[in-house]
Amino acid sequence: MNSIELSKQLGGKIEIRSKQKLTKQNLPILYTPGVAAVSLAVAKNKKLAFEYTIRKNTVAVISDGSAVLGLGNIGPEAALPVMEGKALLFKELAGVDAFPIVLDTQDTEEIIKIVKAIASTFGGINLEDISAPRCFEIEERLKKELDIPVFHDDQHGTAIVVLAGLINALKVVKKNIAKIKIVISGAGAAGIAVTKLLIKYGAKNIILVDSQGIIHKERKVGMNMAKTEIAHLTNHKVVNGSIHDAIAEADVFIGVSAPNILTAKDIKKMNEHAIVFTMSNPIPEISPEEAKKGGAYIIATGSSKYPNQINNVLVFPGIFRGALDTRTKKITDEHKLKAARAIASLVKKPNCGKIIPEALDPRVAKAVAGVFKNKTK
Amino acid sequence: MNSIELSKQLGGKIEIRSKQKLTKQNLPILYTPGVAAVSLAVAKNKKLAFEYTIRKNTVAVISDGSAVLGLGNIGPEAALPVMEGKALLFKELAGVDAFPIVLDTQDTEEIIKIVKAIASTFGGINLEDISAPRCFEIEERLKKELDIPVFHDDQHGTAIVVLAGLINALKVVKKNIAKIKIVISGAGAAGIAVTKLLIKYGAKNIILVDSQGIIHKERKVGMNMAKTEIAHLTNHKVVNGSIHDAIAEADVFIGVSAPNILTAKDIKKMNEHAIVFTMSNPIPEISPEEAKKGGAYIIATGSSKYPNQINNVLVFPGIFRGALDTRTKKITDEHKLKAARAIASLVKKPNCGKIIPEALDPRVAKAVAGVFKNKTK
Repeated sequence: MNSIELSKQLGGKIEIRSKQKLTKQNLPILYTPGVAAVSLAVAKNKKLAFEYTIRKNTVAVISDGSAVLGLGNIGPEAALPVMEGKALLFKELAGVDAFPIVLDTQDTEEIIKIVKAIASTFGGINLEDISAPRCFEIEERLKKELDIPVFHDDQHGTAIVVLAGLINALKVVKKNIAKIKIVISGAGAAGIAVTKLLIKYGAKNIILVDSQGIIHKERKVGMNMAKTEIAHLTNHKVVNGSIHDAIAEADVFIGVSAPNILTAKDIKKMNEHAIVFTMSNPIPEISPEEAKKGGAYIIATGSSKYPNQINNVLVFPGIFRGALDTRTKKITDEHKLKAARAIASLVKKPNCGKIIPEALDPRVAKAVAGVFKNKTK
Repeated sequence: MNSIELSKQLGGKIEIRSKQKLTKQNLPILYTPGVAAVSLAVAKNKKLAFEYTIRKNTVAVISDGSAVLGLGNIGPEAALPVMEGKALLFKELAGVDAFPIVLDTQDTEEIIKIVKAIASTFGGINLEDISAPRCFEIEERLKKELDIPVFHDDQHGTAIVVLAGLINALKVVKKNIAKIKIVISGAGAAGIAVTKLLIKYGAKNIILVDSQGIIHKERKVGMNMAKTEIAHLTNHKVVNGSIHDAIAEADVFIGVSAPNILTAKDIKKMNEHAIVFTMSNPIPEISPEEAKKGGAYIIATGSSKYPNQINNVLVFPGIFRGALDTRTKKITDEHKLKAARAIASLVKKPNCGKIIPEALDPRVAKAVAGVFKNKTK
């Protein structure tokens, strides 16, 4: 059955279920008049909502439909099937109740206002498929203004899983993060977040490239606040040029950008034991076959058809499982670094064909959630 | 187990469930890359969201926590347990997936904006426990500006179930709606909506009373737009005075107001075969025992402890079941009248102790939903 047939058959991938069968006896306990006692208790102490209500285990999956998969700005209705899929994964992989909310506005201030206004319903906010650079401000503001965890998965889920794969890939090729050259293609939500997390992890030499070429601090065209900030954290030699220039003598290529921008010729310019993460979806920056022809030593993609699938599904369920269980209010860089290490550590003996756990490896969510357990560590 | 213990044990009365177990095989169908085909199809034809996504069967239960049960303005967190209970009833009684959204604002324009912005997620909007008179404008505007059904249950759910009970009560006492005097206590969401629906049904002589006394078109104190409108539809003789004046020679008393405002002495002033619906919750306008002492012939309450429980639960599940199944965009007065008749008709031989079906009568939701089936009728 294909995805449209299945959607038609299911009429939505998730449903609401009662935790108690309704009876004549429990009706006055579950609803009026008994529920008044619960409401009064929460009115007196709002924190009890995290014990007595769905806030305890429920996350909103919020999108404005502005940057959906590889499809772009397709609007809220069309984003809904993706958000439902995400909600399904949250439940199946980590027991988190996630509910999709798609928004019929793409105004930054309105989105912030709306999410703040509905946040009392939820224990956490997963932002999804909101286009850059708006996503940066929306997330930052919500993190500041809400006291529940806010996590833009396209940024941080991607960054964590990429770092997890890279940790193991570097083990395989015996290279040190501080000494290698990394080229990242794509300066949207994912590219910016990957860059920042790799720097936190110890990367010293990153070149970030977007559709206009190499980003550097003197560039004026096609910049925004996020790119300007990143220009000062990367490319210290202020190199300019195209992706084809950037990739020369790189040890690692990380693609979160657009289909078919590289050829085997580009890969040949990379250093020995080249690591190529070609993750644009559904069509990658370079096909694994072509990358191999260019001599890539370790290849990872976003697809399940090849080994080494770098998939956010390894991250977000465990992140919220852990944050909800520990009532963590902010997901920090420290959490992200630990989560990446936790995922990487599940591959006992990394090799070229196995740098990251399988997408549905049942150990992963638990390991990621565990990161939140010991706050003092 | 009491309601607090149960809430603590459950941690929320509802949960999200996947309709499909996740496997390695269906992951790329339920999520990326397969889901892209579903998103593209919906992007091309937004109506397909009502077939392919949760919009098909999902209703938002939205409250700002401003008028919760008898508890008043207790805010969004404290309203959440009630909205969860409602969601549970939706599912248990009519298979409707309902998700609670509590709002951290009580500004009319903001609420309208927010509900409009999140509406693409849902197939219908159930407004709940929003205080009058804001609830009237919020509902009216949303009905106008959205193309999915919007239903403020405190208004219309109450009006429909009261009318259902009254239809049978009048059968028992053999009185004609057009010829009787009806006194309604309470000019909030419920009182206003009950009054309007009874007029639509044929009532000619209604006196509406609020905490300031009888409402009439010359009254200036404690009025608002809704009361002014209703003052022109009721009390044609422009009577003034208190509830104790109003009730003299009334055939029907309907209380949706405040505890203990009537005594047996008041009921004695009513006409023979007095019908008394004393529904303030948890403490009624007059206790059934006291009403009986005053000579009330038919007594109904909001409580399951007495016969004739007038409970909205008889209405809202079936209303949305029917509206969703038929993709009805507006719930009209015609639907409401038919729903009341459908509920009433389930009591084959009404008598003083039985004017309305039991709260959990499994036939009710189906009968109410059936109202939407034949659009031409």
